[in-house]
Amino acid sequence: MLDGFFRPKSVAVIGASRKRNKVGHVILKNLLSSFKGKIFPINPNAKKILGKEVYPSVLAVKDKIDTAIIAVRAETSLKVVEECGKKGIKNLIIITSGFAEVGNYELRKKLLSLLKRYKLVCLGPNILGTLDTYSGFDCLFLPRRRMMRPRKGNISFITQSGAIGSAVLDLTASEGYGFAKFVSYGNALQVDESDLLEYFGRDENTKIICMYIEGVKSGKKFLKIGKKVAKRKPVIVMKGGLSKAGSKAILSHTGSLAGSSEIYSGVFKQAGMIQVFSLEEMFDVAKILDKCGPPAGDRVQVITNGGGHGILCVDAIIREGLKLAEPSEKTVRKLREIFPPNVIVSNPMDLLGDATDERYRLAINACLRDKGIDIILIVLLYQTPLLTERIVKILGEAREKPIVVVSTGGKLTEKIRKKLEEAGLPCYLFPSNAVRAIKHLVRYYKSV
Amino acid sequence: MLDGFFRPKSVAVIGASRKRNKVGHVILKNLLSSFKGKIFPINPNAKKILGKEVYPSVLAVKDKIDTAIIAVRAETSLKVVEECGKKGIKNLIIITSGFAEVGNYELRKKLLSLLKRYKLVCLGPNILGTLDTYSGFDCLFLPRRRMMRPRKGNISFITQSGAIGSAVLDLTASEGYGFAKFVSYGNALQVDESDLLEYFGRDENTKIICMYIEGVKSGKKFLKIGKKVAKRKPVIVMKGGLSKAGSKAILSHTGSLAGSSEIYSGVFKQAGMIQVFSLEEMFDVAKILDKCGPPAGDRVQVITNGGGHGILCVDAIIREGLKLAEPSEKTVRKLREIFPPNVIVSNPMDLLGDATDERYRLAINACLRDKGIDIILIVLLYQTPLLTERIVKILGEAREKPIVVVSTGGKLTEKIRKKLEEAGLPCYLFPSNAVRAIKHLVRYYKSV
Repeated sequence: MLDGFFRPKSVAVIGASRKRNKVGHVILKNLLSSFKGKIFPINPNAKKILGKEVYPSVLAVKDKIDTAIIAVRAETSLKVVEECGKKGIKNLIIITSGFAEVGNYELRKKLLSLLKRYKLVCLGPNILGTLDTYSGFDCLFLPRRRMMRPRKGNISFITQSGAIGSAVLDLTASEGYGFAKFVSYGNALQVDESDLLEYFGRDENTKIICMYIEGVKSGKKFLKIGKKVAKRKPVIVMKGGLSKAGSKAILSHTGSLAGSSEIYSGVFKQAGMIQVFSLEEMFDVAKILDKCGPPAGDRVQVITNGGGHGILCVDAIIREGLKLAEPSEKTVRKLREIFPPNVIVSNPMDLLGDATDERYRLAINACLRDKGIDIILIVLLYQTPLLTERIVKILGEAREKPIVVVSTGGKLTEKIRKKLEEAGLPCYLFPSNAVRAIKHLVRYYKSV
Repeated sequence: MLDGFFRPKSVAVIGASRKRNKVGHVILKNLLSSFKGKIFPINPNAKKILGKEVYPSVLAVKDKIDTAIIAVRAETSLKVVEECGKKGIKNLIIITSGFAEVGNYELRKKLLSLLKRYKLVCLGPNILGTLDTYSGFDCLFLPRRRMMRPRKGNISFITQSGAIGSAVLDLTASEGYGFAKFVSYGNALQVDESDLLEYFGRDENTKIICMYIEGVKSGKKFLKIGKKVAKRKPVIVMKGGLSKAGSKAILSHTGSLAGSSEIYSGVFKQAGMIQVFSLEEMFDVAKILDKCGPPAGDRVQVITNGGGHGILCVDAIIREGLKLAEPSEKTVRKLREIFPPNVIVSNPMDLLGDATDERYRLAINACLRDKGIDIILIVLLYQTPLLTERIVKILGEAREKPIVVVSTGGKLTEKIRKKLEEAGLPCYLFPSNAVRAIKHLVRYYKSV
């Protein structure tokens, strides 16, 4: 039933426009560039837009239409919804705003009764749209020059706020994150966060679900579905409006009632979801869950070429309630034999500023074999003279335990970071971010 | 007395080398590219390096030498230190490692007695070097292709760990931060963190001091000097080894005794310093103190073009103990008159996804005039269609109150961020980082 929002066979764009800055133009253009299904632009005052034949209404289209994207003004929306009903369209994506979020409850009521009469399934109103990197369906109303699209991947994002969705997609796409599906669900008149969560829970391209929610329509439904989905795949959730003042602002944003933050935290916990408190934390966690398999336990070994970073990693490990691994006597003896005398074979293991790729390879291999070590946290500071890009290959081959990388630095660091992440290693700029992500990785796999 | 470490008139590089990867080569090269004083490479086995005449020892140089940089092996260090003493050199920068941090207390003792005998002032040993963007003195032993150098600016950084220093300089330089001085002081055999703090306190190019320390040599001295300096300019301090396990690792890193984290926090607080708990937080705070003047109070007004971001800002403001400003009736009335009806004139002020630069200008000007508002937190999401680079000029001109910017996004966001920061606005990727920085700004100016 929700497939129509992500991979319809045919779609109408109602409110398609010739004007470059209009929502109805941008959506049509985005669909034309990546969607392979049939596309019908609808506009009574145009003949052709972007080279496509335009129809005056969906009723003028002879082919079957699975999904209609509605990008007309609020006043006109009821008329076109009725036409969609008559045409036998099943799924409506209502981009249009001007309903409950501005206090227009009358319009909301009328829309709802039309949806019921024609048995329509509606997403929105007041949304940014949806994106499916696998089907190529992209009805987000923001142009690609403003908002980058992510590559295909495992993360799916359900967001009540369109702007948070677009800002985060733009950022994570530029950082190289891979996404499966994206949906902004706005006022959630009909399809709500729980429905989408259930749908993403079944979606085989989605391995990790991220959610930004401002309110939940039915706590009971959310908890029931959440429990089921969180058992199958990680669900990372952030609640906007945790403060009283913040929750007041929600009413005028998506028209939701926010509820107390304690109740929400309780529900997330009971459902087995991962609650995060900032967007940065959300995508730090999504990254580690995307790239790392389950650790055997919570004992972390730090390998570094900078003493200070080693100390900061250890501080963060203790702060986050993880354990410092103790390398076995065998590991210590073996590495002591092959390493220069001033290398510190302990935890942190300090390979020193003159560390080579080879020294890292030896240290990592020893740690992979050591049963007292569950997770390896590697600091790679490329300001030092002897580290090269060969490290990417070395780390890319070592996949038996979760390996997490910290690299603080500028352009060279960023360049190698991208390659390391392509090779499957989650990389972080600072020790604190990396260790916080490890904490969530450990907790998640302990809970399932 | 410490000027010789940052702006000597003449310098000897003892251990200058022809080999590209050697520390003594890199230091000479860096000095040659930016230092305008006299440079004397010292090496008994070379005639010319990088086009410069080489001397077999400092005793063979006829000119006066203010400062010697020692980049020879630990075994040879005593001999060259003695020669420096005989030559009448005053300041020694001892890059060489292999002293207390590897348990070589004997060598340490001998070095100390030589320093005393010849009344030498020594920085190090076991350090990365120093950098002064104003004098061009750059004796950091890392090549510029590995570690970017920052532009001239107001921040100075004192770090016990060379690797943390280089990693952070590389990162902040690439992000556009401006620095005055940088020093890595390693084992602090003689000149310690307190001496450097006092010196930077008097340095007129230094407006903000950042410190990464692992241990303090004399708590009493540190507190006394800290109090004095923190009254004059902000001192942001991070202590490595806050955990027991972390402080154990310190002994083998810089040979310092770490002490309990509660004692340190107490000292920092008593001294009026700003304690931070991650490198990210340190430079988030340095940025806001660099770019913003004192706020009149702690009442923050949020202006946004994304509802969700507005809510996250409000949540963070409450979480950090700041106050939400209440725009005056006059402000509300005025903006209500000129704005479209669905713009929300409150706090957060939601200018909506179709906000233009002009709408921002009007909102900001009204907030600048409103006496109930102390700080303006502006969310700029460039994924929306109508915002342009003109916003840089608009914000650059509004300087009567602290203005802080949050922009989450990819390439376009990064491009405009750089321009906004050049225009004097501190910019952050996420609401939580921006608001945490605002908290420190408010606290700092409340305390002085």
